[in-house]
Amino acid sequence: MIIVMKAGADKREKEEVLKKIKELGYTPHVIHGTTRDVIGAIGDERGKEALQSIESMNGVESVVPILQPYKLASKEVMKESSTIRISDSVSIGGKNIVIMAGPCSVESEKQIIDSAIAVKEAGAHVLRGGAFKPRTSPYSFQGLEEDGLKLLAKARELTGLPIVTEVINPETADLVAEYADILQIGARNSQNFALLKKVGQLKRPVLLKRGMAMTIQELLMSAEYILSEGNQSVILCERGIRTFETATRNTLDLSAIPALRSRTHLPVVIDPSHGTGNHHYVGPMSLAAIAGGADGLIIEVHPDPEHATSDGPQSLKPAKFAELMVKMRRVAEAVDRTV
Amino acid sequence: MIIVMKAGADKREKEEVLKKIKELGYTPHVIHGTTRDVIGAIGDERGKEALQSIESMNGVESVVPILQPYKLASKEVMKESSTIRISDSVSIGGKNIVIMAGPCSVESEKQIIDSAIAVKEAGAHVLRGGAFKPRTSPYSFQGLEEDGLKLLAKARELTGLPIVTEVINPETADLVAEYADILQIGARNSQNFALLKKVGQLKRPVLLKRGMAMTIQELLMSAEYILSEGNQSVILCERGIRTFETATRNTLDLSAIPALRSRTHLPVVIDPSHGTGNHHYVGPMSLAAIAGGADGLIIEVHPDPEHATSDGPQSLKPAKFAELMVKMRRVAEAVDRTV
Amino acid sequence: MIIVMKAGADKREKEEVLKKIKELGYTPHVIHGTTRDVIGAIGDERGKEALQSIESMNGVESVVPILQPYKLASKEVMKESSTIRISDSVSIGGKNIVIMAGPCSVESEKQIIDSAIAVKEAGAHVLRGGAFKPRTSPYSFQGLEEDGLKLLAKARELTGLPIVTEVINPETADLVAEYADILQIGARNSQNFALLKKVGQLKRPVLLKRGMAMTIQELLMSAEYILSEGNQSVILCERGIRTFETATRNTLDLSAIPALRSRTHLPVVIDPSHGTGNHHYVGPMSLAAIAGGADGLIIEVHPDPEHATSDGPQSLKPAKFAELMVKMRRVAEAVDRTV
Amino acid sequence: MIIVMKAGADKREKEEVLKKIKELGYTPHVIHGTTRDVIGAIGDERGKEALQSIESMNGVESVVPILQPYKLASKEVMKESSTIRISDSVSIGGKNIVIMAGPCSVESEKQIIDSAIAVKEAGAHVLRGGAFKPRTSPYSFQGLEEDGLKLLAKARELTGLPIVTEVINPETADLVAEYADILQIGARNSQNFALLKKVGQLKRPVLLKRGMAMTIQELLMSAEYILSEGNQSVILCERGIRTFETATRNTLDLSAIPALRSRTHLPVVIDPSHGTGNHHYVGPMSLAAIAGGADGLIIEVHPDPEHATSDGPQSLKPAKFAELMVKMRRVAEAVDRTV
Repeated sequence: MIIVMKAGADKREKEEVLKKIKELGYTPHVIHGTTRDVIGAIGDERGKEALQSIESMNGVESVVPILQPYKLASKEVMKESSTIRISDSVSIGGKNIVIMAGPCSVESEKQIIDSAIAVKEAGAHVLRGGAFKPRTSPYSFQGLEEDGLKLLAKARELTGLPIVTEVINPETADLVAEYADILQIGARNSQNFALLKKVGQLKRPVLLKRGMAMTIQELLMSAEYILSEGNQSVILCERGIRTFETATRNTLDLSAIPALRSRTHLPVVIDPSHGTGNHHYVGPMSLAAIAGGADGLIIEVHPDPEHATSDGPQSLKPAKFAELMVKMRRVAEAVDRTV
Repeated sequence: MIIVMKAGADKREKEEVLKKIKELGYTPHVIHGTTRDVIGAIGDERGKEALQSIESMNGVESVVPILQPYKLASKEVMKESSTIRISDSVSIGGKNIVIMAGPCSVESEKQIIDSAIAVKEAGAHVLRGGAFKPRTSPYSFQGLEEDGLKLLAKARELTGLPIVTEVINPETADLVAEYADILQIGARNSQNFALLKKVGQLKRPVLLKRGMAMTIQELLMSAEYILSEGNQSVILCERGIRTFETATRNTLDLSAIPALRSRTHLPVVIDPSHGTGNHHYVGPMSLAAIAGGADGLIIEVHPDPEHATSDGPQSLKPAKFAELMVKMRRVAEAVDRTV
Repeated sequence: MIIVMKAGADKREKEEVLKKIKELGYTPHVIHGTTRDVIGAIGDERGKEALQSIESMNGVESVVPILQPYKLASKEVMKESSTIRISDSVSIGGKNIVIMAGPCSVESEKQIIDSAIAVKEAGAHVLRGGAFKPRTSPYSFQGLEEDGLKLLAKARELTGLPIVTEVINPETADLVAEYADILQIGARNSQNFALLKKVGQLKRPVLLKRGMAMTIQELLMSAEYILSEGNQSVILCERGIRTFETATRNTLDLSAIPALRSRTHLPVVIDPSHGTGNHHYVGPMSLAAIAGGADGLIIEVHPDPEHATSDGPQSLKPAKFAELMVKMRRVAEAVDRTV
Repeated sequence: MIIVMKAGADKREKEEVLKKIKELGYTPHVIHGTTRDVIGAIGDERGKEALQSIESMNGVESVVPILQPYKLASKEVMKESSTIRISDSVSIGGKNIVIMAGPCSVESEKQIIDSAIAVKEAGAHVLRGGAFKPRTSPYSFQGLEEDGLKLLAKARELTGLPIVTEVINPETADLVAEYADILQIGARNSQNFALLKKVGQLKRPVLLKRGMAMTIQELLMSAEYILSEGNQSVILCERGIRTFETATRNTLDLSAIPALRSRTHLPVVIDPSHGTGNHHYVGPMSLAAIAGGADGLIIEVHPDPEHATSDGPQSLKPAKFAELMVKMRRVAEAVDRTV
C-alpha cells in the first residue's frame, strides 16, 4: 500500500504511521516529496485490511492499495486462458465460442422441449432455463423448482445439450447440482457469499453473473470465493450494469471483455438479453460480443415470447435465433474463431 | 397498464393487442391520439407480468405500468406511519429517533463490552455489531460467528441495550434470531430472496438495507417479500448508493427519506457510516438525516478505529460519538422530535 | 400525455385537472380504472411543458409523456438512414464504415503530418486532431488554436483526408468552420445550447458527442437543436458514459447503436479511445462496434503516445492501427459492409 | 505521481521508465516491493499530464496521482472559509445562511415582482430567476432574455434583494453582468470552459453548479478555471447528480457539503429544488442541508406553479416557502447559525 501523508503532517504523526506499519508486519519506505511525504508499506497486502485503517490516523490523507486483492483469479497465477470442460463435447475458453440458449424460465414440458429442439437445431451448445427464479416481486412466478429441473433433464436427454440453470439458495444447491451441468449464480446473488462458498464446494462449473453495481474487481473477488473453496471451473458473465440510461434495461458493458482478459484467465460470457432487455438489440450486441472477444453467449429464446411468464420482451423467437446463429458464425470466422 | 402503440401501427396489430389484453383478463380501453393510439388495460396489474410481454407484439412501442407493484408496504394499505417495537423501552417510527451504535464487527469481549458501555453512556438506544460478516474478499475476517452472538448477548445483559446484527444465510438465520433483537439484512443481500423469505417467517424486527444499485421501488419490493411472509416489523435503511463519485465510499441518498415517506408506512433509518465511508462526514450527515426526517440512525463507533478489523476509516471514537449525540439532540428538538 | 390520478383523488380534483387540460388546448379522455383513474391528454405534446406542471396539482400522482420530444431527429420524419456527405469521396451513413483517426491534439507540424500520412496509409478516411482543446484543468495544454487549424489544413492538402476538429465556443466557431470538414462538439459541450445553435447555422457536418451523463433521448434532443437551426448533417457519437466502474475511463455503451438505430435516421459513430481510455481495449471495442452496426469509428492514433500532451494512454501507435484496420475490414465484410 | 510496475516488468523496462521520469523533470524514487516495484516521481505534478502518459510504457501497470490537481480552490492556499460579498447587506460563507429564492424563469413583470415581494417578506436574502434559459428541447421556452434581466432589476429596485441569474454564453455574459449580482453557471455548462474563463474575467460573484456527472474534484477544477482568471468570488452549488434512481429527478448529494468543506475554502450552496425535482421533498432536504452545514440554499418559489413555464413540479408556493423559512431558522439555530 501507499500511504499519502497530508501536506502539513508533523513529525510525530509520521512516526506514529511508521510505527503502525511495522506493528502490522510491513516494512515502511518513505519518499520525501516536494509538498508532502508518501510512505510505501512493503509486503503482501492482500487480505490485510488493517493497513486500510491507517486512513483514520492523524496526518494521513489517503491509503492507496497497489496490489489487486484477488490471487487465484489473476493472471499472475495462470498466464494462459482457462478452458473449462462442460461435457464430453463442449468446453468453454478455447477457440470455439459456446452459445447457451433457451427460455428465461422453464414453464412446461412442451415449452422447454420445443425450446431445446429449436436451439439445438440452430446450433446452440448448451440449453438454458430457470427452475428456481429469483424475482423482484413476491407475487411473480417463482419457477417450477424441482419439477423444472426434471424437465430440463428430459430436454437434455432428448437433445444431448448440457444444461445451465440458476441456483438461488445454499439449501437447494445440492439438488440443483444433481441435475445441472453448469450452476448459474444470478446478478442479485453475485455477492451472496454464503451461496458462493457453497457452489465452491460443488463439482460443477459455475457461471457467475456480474452484479448490477459490481466493479470488474468485485466480480473477480466473487470468483475468488468460489475458486478458494476448491472449484476451479468458474465462467464470468457480463449481463449489463445499472446506469442512468433508461433506453435499455441495463447498460451492457462489452469493454468488460478486454478488461477481464487483461486481469484474469477465466472465460468470459456475454448475456445480451438481460444486458439490453430488448429482443431487437440482442442480435447486434451478440455480434459485437463475438467480435469483441467473448468466449460465449447466453441468449434468451422462447417459442412464444408473447406468452412467456417472464422476460418476454427480451426473448428471441426460434427463427430469429437461427438467423442470428448464421450471422454469429460469420463474425466468429472474421476473428479466427468458430461458433 | 398503458400500452403505447407505434405511430404506424395498423388495424390488425391493434386488434391483436386488444385480443391479448382480454385473454389476460383485463378490459382494454382505447384512446385515439393525434399521432398514435394508446390503450389502457383496466384491472389490477400487480404480479401480472404477462401484460409486460405485450411489449414483444408487433405495432407496440412500449408498455407503461401505472400501479406500484407493492401492496403491503404501500400507504394505500396503511396511511399512518408504522411504529415497530424493539424492546420494552425502545420502539422505532414514533417521535423518538432511535440511535443504533457500535462497531462494524464484534472482535473480542473487551471490544464489544467497551463499545456497548460507551454508546449506552452517550445515550444510544440499540447496540450494533456484526458476528457473521459478508466480506467482499474471501481472505478478509469473516466474523466470530456464534461466539460473536454470545458476546453481543453478554453486552446486552450488561447494558440493557437491544442488539441489531446481520444475518447472511437462511441456514444460520434461526441461530441469529435466538440472540438478536433486530435482524439486519445487508446491502449485498437486499435481493437475496431466499433470505428475505426466511426472515419473513421469523418473529424478529428486520432492518433491511437498500442495495447499492437498488431503486426506492425495488427496496419496497424486497420489504414486500418479508411482509408477505407474515413479518410486519420491517425497518428500511438507506446506506448509500453506488454512483460515479469517488470522494465518498458511496453516495448517501437522503432524499430517500421523503421519497419513502410518501410511498410507505415503514420507518426509515439512515446509515451515515457506510453511506460516506469517512468518519469526518458522519457527524454532518447524521444531523442532516435527523433534520430531513429520519426515524433512526445506525452509526459505527469503535473504541480503537486504528486497530479495527473492518471499516476503521468510517468509525467514530466514543468521545466523538458522545459529542455528536449532544448535537443530534439539538437538531431533533428543532424538528419537534427527540433523540 | 397520460395523467395518473391518486387512488384517493376526489371528484373536485379530477374536475380541476380536466379543466386545466382543456385550458392548455388538449382534449382529455378519462379511463376509470379499478383503483384509480387515468386521463389521456390528446394533442401534440412536444414543446408543451405546461402539461408537465399538472404534476403539481392536487390528486395527481404522476404525468407520463407518450411522445418522444424530438421530431426532426426521429424516424417518423425520415424512415431510411441519412447519408451525410463529408467530401467528394467520403460520406457516412451508407454501406462503407468511415474511419476517422489521428492524435487527440495537434502538437506540431511534424506530429500531425506524420499522423496523417500514417493513418492515410493504413486506410483511414478522415483525419482527427484537436486545435481548441476543452481541458478539465486550466493548467493543462489548451491546444494550438488557429495555428493548429492551419496545420490540419496542411495535412489535408498533403493527404487528401478531410478533417474533423472540435469547436468549443460560439465565438470561434466560424473560424473553425473555415478549416474543418466536420465540426466536433465534445462530450462536455453536448448540452451547451448556445454552441449547438451556432453550429446549426453553419454549413458543415457536425459530429455530436454524447455527454457523460446524457441519455439517448437527450442526445437526440441536442441533435434536434442543430437540425432545427437548418443544418441537417448531424453525426451522433457514443464515446462512453460515466458509471461506477473504474477499470475503464468511461463505460462504452455499444447498445446505443441499436437503440439509436430504432429511434433516428442519423448515422452513429463510436469512439473506443475515449470510451475505454486504454489502448489495449481499443482494438476489441472497434471490432465490436463494427459488428454491432456502427457507421463509423473515431480512433486516437499518435506516432509517439509516450510523449503525447494529452490522452497518451488511450492512443494507438500507427503500426497497431494498421493491424487493426486489417481486422476491421474482415469484421465489416462479415456483416456485409466495407471499411 | 506513483508509477506501479507490472509484476513481471524486466530491468530494461524499469530503466526506460526511470529515464522518462527524469526527462520530464522529476526525480524518480524506487521502492522494491515483494511482488513488484513502485516508483515515486517527485516534483509538482499539477498540470503535468505528461507523467500520465507513462501509463502507455511497457512494464507499467498504472500511474496513480498523489496531489489534487487544483491549487487556488484548495485549503492549502487558504485554510479558513472564504466569505464572499454579494451586496452591502448580504455575504455568503459566514455564520448566516443565505437563502436565494424565486421562480425558475422570469415570465412576466407581475410574476417576478409578486415572487420577489413574497420571498422578501418570508425572509429570503437573494432573488433568483432565469432570463436566459438553457433548455433540453429547442421547442421549450428559452427565456425572456434582456427583457427578463430588466424585470429582475426592477424587482431588485423594489425589494432591495440582490439577484442571481444564469449566464449561458460568453457572448451575452457582459450583458448579464450589467444586471446581475451573482452570475449563475448551470449544471450543463459546468465544463463549458470558454464560459468559465469569461466569467472569471468579470467582476461579479459566480454561483457554479455541479454538473450531473461531475465529481467533487472536477467541480473544484471548474472553480479553478474561474479563480485562475482572477475572479476570487466563487460559490459552489450541489444540485443533484445523475444516478440510476428515478424516484427523484436527480440524487441530491448532501455529503458533498463535508466532502467540499474538507477540500476547499469556497462556500457551498444546496439546490433542493433541482436536486429532487419534487416540491414535497424540498422542505426536508432544505432542513437537512442546513443541519449538514450548507452556507446557503437556492429554492424555487413560484406564485402559481401550475402555470409555470418550467419546473412547476418542483416549485414551492409562497405560503409553503414562508413556513419552510420558519423551520429553517429553527434548524439553523440548532447548529449555531442563523438564516
